[in-house]
Amino acid sequence: MKYTKLFTKTSKDVPADEQSKNAQLLIRAGYIHKEMAGVYSFLPLGLKVLNNVMRVIREEMNKAEGQEMLMSSLQDPQLWKQTNRWIDNKDVDVWFTTNLKNDTTLGLGFTHEEPVTRIASNYINSYKDMPKSVYQFQNKFRNETRAKSGIMRTREFIMKDMYSFARDESEHGVVYEKIKQAYVNIFKNLGIGDKTFVTFASGGVFSKYSHEFQTVCEAGEDEIYICDRLGLAINKEVLNDEVLADLGVSRDELRMEVASEVGNIFSLGSRFSDALNLKYADDNDEMRSVIMGCYGIGPARLMGVLAEINGDDKGLAWPSLISPYALHLISLHKSEGDEVYNYTKNIYDKLIEAGVEVMWDDRSGVSAGEKFADADLIGITMRVLVSEKTIKENSLEVKERTSDKSELIHTEDFLSTYTKANCE
Amino acid sequence: MKYTKLFTKTSKDVPADEQSKNAQLLIRAGYIHKEMAGVYSFLPLGLKVLNNVMRVIREEMNKAEGQEMLMSSLQDPQLWKQTNRWIDNKDVDVWFTTNLKNDTTLGLGFTHEEPVTRIASNYINSYKDMPKSVYQFQNKFRNETRAKSGIMRTREFIMKDMYSFARDESEHGVVYEKIKQAYVNIFKNLGIGDKTFVTFASGGVFSKYSHEFQTVCEAGEDEIYICDRLGLAINKEVLNDEVLADLGVSRDELRMEVASEVGNIFSLGSRFSDALNLKYADDNDEMRSVIMGCYGIGPARLMGVLAEINGDDKGLAWPSLISPYALHLISLHKSEGDEVYNYTKNIYDKLIEAGVEVMWDDRSGVSAGEKFADADLIGITMRVLVSEKTIKENSLEVKERTSDKSELIHTEDFLSTYTKANCE
Repeated sequence: MKYTKLFTKTSKDVPADEQSKNAQLLIRAGYIHKEMAGVYSFLPLGLKVLNNVMRVIREEMNKAEGQEMLMSSLQDPQLWKQTNRWIDNKDVDVWFTTNLKNDTTLGLGFTHEEPVTRIASNYINSYKDMPKSVYQFQNKFRNETRAKSGIMRTREFIMKDMYSFARDESEHGVVYEKIKQAYVNIFKNLGIGDKTFVTFASGGVFSKYSHEFQTVCEAGEDEIYICDRLGLAINKEVLNDEVLADLGVSRDELRMEVASEVGNIFSLGSRFSDALNLKYADDNDEMRSVIMGCYGIGPARLMGVLAEINGDDKGLAWPSLISPYALHLISLHKSEGDEVYNYTKNIYDKLIEAGVEVMWDDRSGVSAGEKFADADLIGITMRVLVSEKTIKENSLEVKERTSDKSELIHTEDFLSTYTKANCE
Repeated sequence: MKYTKLFTKTSKDVPADEQSKNAQLLIRAGYIHKEMAGVYSFLPLGLKVLNNVMRVIREEMNKAEGQEMLMSSLQDPQLWKQTNRWIDNKDVDVWFTTNLKNDTTLGLGFTHEEPVTRIASNYINSYKDMPKSVYQFQNKFRNETRAKSGIMRTREFIMKDMYSFARDESEHGVVYEKIKQAYVNIFKNLGIGDKTFVTFASGGVFSKYSHEFQTVCEAGEDEIYICDRLGLAINKEVLNDEVLADLGVSRDELRMEVASEVGNIFSLGSRFSDALNLKYADDNDEMRSVIMGCYGIGPARLMGVLAEINGDDKGLAWPSLISPYALHLISLHKSEGDEVYNYTKNIYDKLIEAGVEVMWDDRSGVSAGEKFADADLIGITMRVLVSEKTIKENSLEVKERTSDKSELIHTEDFLSTYTKANCE
């Protein structure tokens, strides 16, 4: 992508109505557009990062034998009445509803236990049909009274929600642990493994505890109490003597941190399968309840947390796995067609041909300082500079976004590394 | 994927409330689930096909220099009032609306000219910023009075909508032709090029004509009049003497066909840019109106049309480019672990290792006839059979879904072809 062709531009202005660091940086760098409070559109750079986050999640969901599907937003009230989750401000408090032309009211899904359980009842009839897990990346609607923290808490957002179906609590436990490990892998792969803690939280009506994944982050909304000895945490809302006893933790070994919930996994028991008649014949041909679990991650919230944690006063700074481009190529040419321009174009063309994701700041008449500032704001992992000086050495100046040190690398070596790595 | 692990199963029952061939076959084969009238969920097989259709479209949109983004569903009425497209049953007739907790009414986007124009006004200020095109695959909501034709006309559906921005009508014309050609390529790649006609239709208030892409298909909702000499068609709704004169076509060289609209491209002029103040400074520093175009395809409708056209009385039949799996491997084993099972497992493992998308019907205790019937219903492009008979020849029996003829291929040759092709 040539910078002069990119749909967006950077901006120096901080949006007046945005308090959060993630939204300020993402808007200034051209990643997102605020449509209204709590509703954002993802611009080309932003969608690339969001897609990368989803790719990292998808890989782990597939390894955990999840099968991807896609359910609808529009929801049939009849289904939700059966589980007592339809009446807003009583059963739940986040429904958006809408009406058909004939005045029938429909819901906009804020989660999908009900529809997925109904679908599963078409396909799960026997003990041989389990365990099974399905997941989706799907646009959720939640009628939050207050939207805040930029893309970390919005009224409309893509959620990865997985649902598991097992014969009994024992089989469910195995599936649950496998998916918990997949979550651990995801946060580790995204470079926030050491800041992210499996956190004991309320299990709601379903079970004693649920597990949140909480990432230590100033912009977070939760307070967690970390036990470094056991490598776990307890959400403030369930911190009491019973929990401490259950976990074998003493109060004085806990340290408090502000954190953001980046994932949440629940054991659901037979709460939904019983209400919606999802039963199966066991090996004695007796009908039994299916045991379910649900497992959520919000990719945009995760992107927001990564922006908060990795960003600095100069701008964003993406880990390579989710960077919108692998390389930010800067040419300090004076005019299109001069030696520096042509030298850079040759490198750019070779990288593109090899399938390397590269952004080239090909602007003429823009100062080196401005190009560097924009590169820092956009936050692509690796910056590659071409100037008259580097050309004399037949080299490129390579610098990581998060490092102060740059390195001169021979152009041929650089190209052979990048074009080869990509073929493997 | 092993068939015994697949989330769905096939069904012999035709859903009572489904008239359309596409929905009947897709539901029986386990591709989709009907949530309510006009609302479907995509099950794992269905999402694979939908994703493949979207991949084919995306490739052409990228070649046409479109940049992918993702706008929100929730829409701000203030924006739509500026273009006189807010009041339902007057300005437009497909709005779904919903309310925030404070009773503010929001819309659910049925198209995105308004938000994309507002976004573009942040980034397009000068003649140097054009031409540009952006597109998205985004979930649209349309409050249709009657939903019908299965997944071909629904109340909620992913749409690929592209929007182009140009300096003047001349530059717009070049962009428009490039995208029109991209559409031609898409339908050709999906194997319906010879059935799909660029069709002159009403331009609405924007321009004299728009171009529909109409695919001849019994389940279609439109009547088109095809001129084979010129390779174009005219929508019945605009068939009059003026149109015939404009196109240089005489009435007696036209043949009528029933067709389904699989794409529609519009020149918008400055209808939206003027209303939303998207202007630019030309090379004399004078402010001028941006000229826009919009370009839509519904991937699910396209999937429905492909199901209608390629399906037969036995079931679905996907072109290889969008088949959920490349191969449907059937083993006629008697029990897990016998010679036929192990021989097939070895082939399956090698294909999986090479990254080939293969479904293996690994069921025991199911007749050959039932396995063949399910393969025909699911409609994967290529069927590969392993039996005691084929093993004696150290071969596999390979058959295309749409052919009556099968061919014995030596197992080693088959494997080397498939595992090599995939590495390239």
